[in-house]
Amino acid sequence: VIAVDANGADQGPAAVAEGVRRSRVPTLLFGPRMELLSAGDLAELVDAPETIKAGDEPVAAVRSRRDASIVQAAAAVGEGRAEALVSAGSTGPTLAAGTISIKRIRGVFRPALAVLLPVPDGPVLLLDAGASVQARPEHLVQFAYMGACFMQACVGVERPRVGLLSVGEESGKGTPEILAAHDRLAEGTLDFAGNVEGFDLPRATVDVVVADGFSGNVALKVLESTVKTLTGEIADRVRSGPVSATGGLLIRGKLRGLRDQLDPERVGGAILLGLRKPVVVAHGSFGPRGIESAVRLAQRAVSEDMVGRTAAALESAGALRSAPAGSVVGATSETSSDA
Amino acid sequence: VIAVDANGADQGPAAVAEGVRRSRVPTLLFGPRMELLSAGDLAELVDAPETIKAGDEPVAAVRSRRDASIVQAAAAVGEGRAEALVSAGSTGPTLAAGTISIKRIRGVFRPALAVLLPVPDGPVLLLDAGASVQARPEHLVQFAYMGACFMQACVGVERPRVGLLSVGEESGKGTPEILAAHDRLAEGTLDFAGNVEGFDLPRATVDVVVADGFSGNVALKVLESTVKTLTGEIADRVRSGPVSATGGLLIRGKLRGLRDQLDPERVGGAILLGLRKPVVVAHGSFGPRGIESAVRLAQRAVSEDMVGRTAAALESAGALRSAPAGSVVGATSETSSDA
Repeated sequence: VIAVDANGADQGPAAVAEGVRRSRVPTLLFGPRMELLSAGDLAELVDAPETIKAGDEPVAAVRSRRDASIVQAAAAVGEGRAEALVSAGSTGPTLAAGTISIKRIRGVFRPALAVLLPVPDGPVLLLDAGASVQARPEHLVQFAYMGACFMQACVGVERPRVGLLSVGEESGKGTPEILAAHDRLAEGTLDFAGNVEGFDLPRATVDVVVADGFSGNVALKVLESTVKTLTGEIADRVRSGPVSATGGLLIRGKLRGLRDQLDPERVGGAILLGLRKPVVVAHGSFGPRGIESAVRLAQRAVSEDMVGRTAAALESAGALRSAPAGSVVGATSETSSDA
Repeated sequence: VIAVDANGADQGPAAVAEGVRRSRVPTLLFGPRMELLSAGDLAELVDAPETIKAGDEPVAAVRSRRDASIVQAAAAVGEGRAEALVSAGSTGPTLAAGTISIKRIRGVFRPALAVLLPVPDGPVLLLDAGASVQARPEHLVQFAYMGACFMQACVGVERPRVGLLSVGEESGKGTPEILAAHDRLAEGTLDFAGNVEGFDLPRATVDVVVADGFSGNVALKVLESTVKTLTGEIADRVRSGPVSATGGLLIRGKLRGLRDQLDPERVGGAILLGLRKPVVVAHGSFGPRGIESAVRLAQRAVSEDMVGRTAAALESAGALRSAPAGSVVGATSETSSDA
C-alpha cells in the first residue's frame, strides 16, 4: 500500500485520483474526499482537505498542522500503515513531513532530492537537487552511494557510473568540499568517474551526478527550462507560415519521439533518498500520467527494497555517520529547514 | 589597437588571423608568424609560437614563460601598447596573464568571467561563469555592478535588470552568502530583481544573472550542452527517412533563424570584468566569425569606456574594497589560482 497526498497538484486532486486509478496500485489517498471519487476500488480515501502551500515555512507548518494531508500521509508511512509516500504537492513540506515522520536511515546525515533527468541518452540521476543548500564532503559521499543504489534498484543499472559535479574534469578542480569528496569517492567501492561538468548532464556520460543542493538545483532548473524554451521556440517556428506548416506536418511524427523522451511525466518526478521508506515528489505540473509514473516508481522502490540496499551499501562502504555507542542516531526528529 | 593571442584555437592560428582580418580593427597579433599572414594590413604580427595549454597550472605557467603568446599579449596591454586583449586560447592562462599584467581595477576584489548567453529572448549576461569557485557576498555585489555596466556600455541596455542566482525566488532562499548579497543589492542603486532561479537563464527574465563561479560555471555548461544535444537530436531526426527529409527541407529556413540566435559565435565569447582593460576570451571552438565578433566586442568595450564606467559605478555604490590610506590596492600582482 502506498500513501498518496493528492493536494497541491496544479491540475487539482481529481487529476491525482485519476493517476492513482491508472496505476492499479493499492493506495491510501489523502485529500478532499469529494474530489477523489474517481480513484477506483484499490484506493482507500482519507478525507484531508487541508493543504500546506509552497509559501509556508515547511517545518513549522508540518509541526503545527497535524491535519494537513501531507502530514497525515507521512504519518501513515511512519506508522507502518503504508510502505511509501507519493506527494503531488511541493517539495518543502514533503521533505519536512518525510524527515519528521518517516525519519532518516540510521547514520544518514540528511536526505537528498534525486531527479531522473529526461535526456535523450538517459536517464541520468542528479542529486541533491535542492533538499539542502550546502553540502559537506561526507554528505556528498553518502549522496553518491544513495544515488547508485537507487539506479540499481529502481532503474536496473547493474553497476552505475557515478560522477561528481564540478567546474572541470581534473581532480584538482572545484571547491574544498568537492576535492575532499573526490578523494573519498576515489578510494571507495563505487564505479567512480571522477569530476564531471555541466556538459555531462544533457550528454548522459554517467548514470549518477552528485552535486551540492545549490548547484544541483540550478543545474536541474537550467536544463528543464532550456528544453522547454527550445522545444517551444521550435514548435512556434514550425507552426508559422503555410510552407512550414506543411513541413511541420511531415516532421511531427519524428519529433514526437523526442518530446516523449524529454517528458518529465514519464519518469515520475523526484525521489527523496536517505529516508526509511521511499518518498516520491511528483512535479506540481503533472497530470494523471505523471502521477501514475510516480506511484509506479514508489512501488518499484518498495518491491526492490531500495532502502535496505541503500543502508547496506552505506554501511559496507563505511560511509555512515559514526555515533557514540548507545545513541540512537537517525531517530531524532531533527530536520533541515533550508529546503 | 587590440592585442590578440592567436594560439589555442581549435581551428588553429590561421582561422584567428582570418577573423582578425574580417573585423577590420587594428591589432597586435601574437602567434606563429607564418600562420598569421592572412591577417591583413591592419594587423601587426608578433612572432610568438609558444603556447600555454589548458592542462598547465595557469599562474605558474604565466609567471615562468615570458615568451608565451598570451603572456606577451597581456603585457602589451599592461604596458599601454594595446587597449584591450582578445584570447583565442583557454580561460585559465588568460585570466592569470590578465590579472598579473593588466591588473584589477583599484578596489575590485577579483575579476569575473561574464558570458552573454545566446538564448531566444536574450542576450542574458551570466557572471561569474568560473573565474573563481567560491564567492563572498562583497564579491557578488561587485559582480552585479560590473555586469550591469557591461550591459550598458557594450550591449546598450539602458537600465539593466539584475538578478541573483539562487534556489528560489523568495529573499530567504539560498546560502548565507546569497542572503547577505541579496540584502546589500536590495539597498543599492541597481534595478535589482532579487533572487532568480535556473529557470530564468533560458527564459531571459533579467538582463544580468549574478552567481558564484561554481554554480555559474555549472549553469553555463548545462545550458550550452542542452542546446547542443537538443538541436543535434532534432537535426538527426529531421534528416532520417525520406518523408522527413522533405519536411526537413521545408522547415529548414525557419529553424536556421533559431540556430543563429543560439550561436555562441555571434556574441564573441566571454569577457573578463574587473580588470583595467577589457579582456575577451573567445571560445576554443570559434572559427573566423567568432573571432571577428570577439574583436568587435573588445573594440566596443574600449570605445564605450566600459572600464571607466565600471570603476565609477562601483565607487558611487560604495562597493569598492576599502583600503588603509596610502596603500596601493589593485596594484598588487596577486592573482587567484583557483580559476
